[in-house]
Amino acid sequence: MKILVLNCGSSSIKYKLFDMENHSVLAQGGIEKIGLKGSFLKLTLPNGQKVMLEGEILEHRIGIEYILGVLLSDKYGCIRSLEEIDAVGHRVVHGGEKFNKSVLITDEVIEMVKECIDLAPLHNPPNLKGINAIAEFMPKTPQVAVFDTAFHQTMPDYAYMYGLPYSLYEKYGIRRYGFHGTSHRYVSRRACEFLNVPYEEQRIITAHIGNGGSVTAIKNGKSIDTSMGMTPVEGLIMGTRSGDVDPGVITYIMDKEHLSSQGVSRLLNKFSGVLGISGVSSDMREIEAAIEQGNERAKLAMRMYNYRIKKYIGSYTAILGGLDILVFTGGVGENQTSTRSEVCKNMEYLGLELDEELNASVRAKEALISKSTSKVKVLVIPTNEELTIAHDTLEIVGWKIK
Amino acid sequence: MKILVLNCGSSSIKYKLFDMENHSVLAQGGIEKIGLKGSFLKLTLPNGQKVMLEGEILEHRIGIEYILGVLLSDKYGCIRSLEEIDAVGHRVVHGGEKFNKSVLITDEVIEMVKECIDLAPLHNPPNLKGINAIAEFMPKTPQVAVFDTAFHQTMPDYAYMYGLPYSLYEKYGIRRYGFHGTSHRYVSRRACEFLNVPYEEQRIITAHIGNGGSVTAIKNGKSIDTSMGMTPVEGLIMGTRSGDVDPGVITYIMDKEHLSSQGVSRLLNKFSGVLGISGVSSDMREIEAAIEQGNERAKLAMRMYNYRIKKYIGSYTAILGGLDILVFTGGVGENQTSTRSEVCKNMEYLGLELDEELNASVRAKEALISKSTSKVKVLVIPTNEELTIAHDTLEIVGWKIK
Repeated sequence: MKILVLNCGSSSIKYKLFDMENHSVLAQGGIEKIGLKGSFLKLTLPNGQKVMLEGEILEHRIGIEYILGVLLSDKYGCIRSLEEIDAVGHRVVHGGEKFNKSVLITDEVIEMVKECIDLAPLHNPPNLKGINAIAEFMPKTPQVAVFDTAFHQTMPDYAYMYGLPYSLYEKYGIRRYGFHGTSHRYVSRRACEFLNVPYEEQRIITAHIGNGGSVTAIKNGKSIDTSMGMTPVEGLIMGTRSGDVDPGVITYIMDKEHLSSQGVSRLLNKFSGVLGISGVSSDMREIEAAIEQGNERAKLAMRMYNYRIKKYIGSYTAILGGLDILVFTGGVGENQTSTRSEVCKNMEYLGLELDEELNASVRAKEALISKSTSKVKVLVIPTNEELTIAHDTLEIVGWKIK
Repeated sequence: MKILVLNCGSSSIKYKLFDMENHSVLAQGGIEKIGLKGSFLKLTLPNGQKVMLEGEILEHRIGIEYILGVLLSDKYGCIRSLEEIDAVGHRVVHGGEKFNKSVLITDEVIEMVKECIDLAPLHNPPNLKGINAIAEFMPKTPQVAVFDTAFHQTMPDYAYMYGLPYSLYEKYGIRRYGFHGTSHRYVSRRACEFLNVPYEEQRIITAHIGNGGSVTAIKNGKSIDTSMGMTPVEGLIMGTRSGDVDPGVITYIMDKEHLSSQGVSRLLNKFSGVLGISGVSSDMREIEAAIEQGNERAKLAMRMYNYRIKKYIGSYTAILGGLDILVFTGGVGENQTSTRSEVCKNMEYLGLELDEELNASVRAKEALISKSTSKVKVLVIPTNEELTIAHDTLEIVGWKIK
């Protein structure tokens, strides 16, 4: 059983082909700069070697065709016929209130994803292009949509509504949706498997932190709140996104800097966060290097980044009524030991004791990093969104596979 | 020693005359609708009787003159000469980064308050008008400015900075300032006096909640974070203010509703919060009444209002590293027993146990409402900003009083 997982962005396509019988990755890579000068396909061969193939990839349809061609090629391929691919799973960013789980893609589903374009104008259209291209090249192959928002559809209304006129929710669906759902779902379940405790009976906080980032409160297996909102700019301080800001500041900046709504949105999404504060970089590894050289604004950016995570953990512990498991994942969560240490400092009041030595030794692998006496179990669980998409796809189309 | 306390808003002036020897209120009242049709002065006589005096009050200078006239009048007055007033204390809303405590008003101070106008264009100008009018009518009387922001100037940079380009802080002073500082300071100190514990050794959260509202984390006597930001729209859900909203939602609303920055600012400040969610009222008493009649959106507004407070308490407990004292104050905090109860539910993880019976019995008076076994002491402390302003004034001009 082979499942192809696709993640189509506005100018990129990532792919991974899984053999689900032994959970191995048969092929993986991605296209970048679609529609731009210098577009290319980069792939990692099974032996770890990286190959770069240049090509004029003007749009997503051509990109998908290119990927399928590479999968079939003698030199870099691993299949002889597209019929070997049993199903295709797509990451779809915004499912609005229409999808609370992964679904088999039908004409009706495509229509519903289209109806969510307004909520994710940059993301849903390329997702749809990928779906349409696969339908064209592999018309008989079932496709599955796995939504970034679906896991969070269990939030209660008092958590997902904003303090805005109710009519804005009715007219435009303005509410909290949350993102990274596939990751929060995967790592919270994995944490419980790792600890051998029942998923449906835990109070869990998952901190998916990296260049983008969100924190989720999970009670008895269900997301009850998450830090990203209707858009991915709310919540944590991120690489280039501001996270939470006084709404009064947004309009103040617009007036002072003579910015349009598009202008201030660009500022909040592309030039804020760790990059904007530090003036150094959006990459936390470069921030760490700058701190070592004594850069004060890099220090400030790091402190703010950590502080915001700590505040969310405190906040979500209150709504969970206490905490059983804290999971770190994402590029920073898996690798940046200093952030995990800072976030967990002085949290003894809720029964959380980090084992500093263990913490310092763990990067990018599943591990328990709290002390044996800690009531709250703190874990590092590397996320695996593609595998989760493949699993969902397998589950949904299972009966169709030969 | 008589001290007059003034609070000059954009179309109102509140006043209170204290006799500081026995902490009694000699006179109190307020002018409303300054510059509008139907302006009037309303005062409360020592026997509790309310008197309404109509008058054409076109601007603040005339309003102050009117108030002084009433204080001197045979019928409603309590002094024979303005020289009996030893000093005047003013509430000044925004002190920016220039003031971290109350100060004697000098020409230099007036200039510095003017420099903060940009940060509080609706508030600082009427504050200055009040100061100028007193200087005109009582040129020899010392005046003191007590800032709403001053108490929060102890926040560390990682708490007061936003995840925005650093240049915006340098150019415009965009950062968290916080408000209600006089109230947070007063009730936190009073709570420690009430409990007879040293103020400088406590982890305190003060929830000043009413039509406006903010939560403050106070560590060893110093504000270390607060929910209002550069403007009073951030943080809690308020009567008509939204509180925290995804920054991406602000620009989304502007585009969808074709609103200017002023338009969306008006929406966030005047038509959001409890009023916007419920469609019923901005007044929590009316929300409670609507809930009793089964109004679903009033229920939602109440749940959201309480939920947001709970999240802030959780968040601030994390940054305080645990909690010793939780104080409720403000119109809702002092009177709405259901909100106190909801906010404190399932907080046993941090050692907080509310005494539901005690809680239900306490309105608008100083009282301990946690169980005797509760590690966290929960108190109701009615706020008294005017008395605090009078105290600050007394302290600062003390040496000048005959």
